[in-house]
Amino acid sequence: MTSRGLDVLGRDECINLLRTNSFGRVGVKIADDPVILPVFYGMFDDEVVFRTDPGTKLIAAVLETRVAFEVDDRSDGWSVLVIGHAHEVRHPSPEMTAIQAPLGDIWPAGERARFVRIDIDRISGRHLVRPPKQTAPA
Amino acid sequence: MTSRGLDVLGRDECINLLRTNSFGRVGVKIADDPVILPVFYGMFDDEVVFRTDPGTKLIAAVLETRVAFEVDDRSDGWSVLVIGHAHEVRHPSPEMTAIQAPLGDIWPAGERARFVRIDIDRISGRHLVRPPKQTAPA
Repeated sequence: MTSRGLDVLGRDECINLLRTNSFGRVGVKIADDPVILPVFYGMFDDEVVFRTDPGTKLIAAVLETRVAFEVDDRSDGWSVLVIGHAHEVRHPSPEMTAIQAPLGDIWPAGERARFVRIDIDRISGRHLVRPPKQTAPA
Repeated sequence: MTSRGLDVLGRDECINLLRTNSFGRVGVKIADDPVILPVFYGMFDDEVVFRTDPGTKLIAAVLETRVAFEVDDRSDGWSVLVIGHAHEVRHPSPEMTAIQAPLGDIWPAGERARFVRIDIDRISGRHLVRPPKQTAPA
């Protein structure tokens, strides 16, 4: 389906784009202000799991609330938006603790030691369609 | 200042990163859900200006409300977050109407015909610091 120069992506396409990427953004309110914070994440049982630090505003703000999560690729022209509830993962699996650190390094011990999962309630995606070249009037 | 593996960027550095980029994301509530939507933008008088379509949920949601705006670069490891009020630009300048379209094309006539400016109230930025290599205990 194409609308306003955007192709609408199906759920499976969206989930697949989430699975093949590892860097996204969480949207939540902190102290009445909307904020957008970048995170590294992984997909486990079709849920988004990201790591964060104990004691941050982020961990306090997201838990048991409804959050947005977005991944995009400007050069390919797609974006995926998830809306869902965030919950803490009390006993992360070894695979979760291997969620990619930035720059190919390993997180230092104790860093990003809290794990949050987002139970996907709604997921949607868009892909930019290259607009037709405008031609001069005859 | 370095904290939790992140360098905190000053206001001037943040504004400069916004000026040298053109793709970001708006965070706002639509029908009680937080959402994150990608936009192309430009900087005019130290305000973020982006284009959107008439009649979308985005335009209705952002006007006269407090929104988040985020730009990041995963490979360079930085992100900038703006919080501010969104207002409609009734008479966009020619420079604003030249805000970059995706894929290097021109927006078709009538597309993205509404202009929104974000009056920056707060701006903050982070830069990932490469963590020191972990060494095996002696």
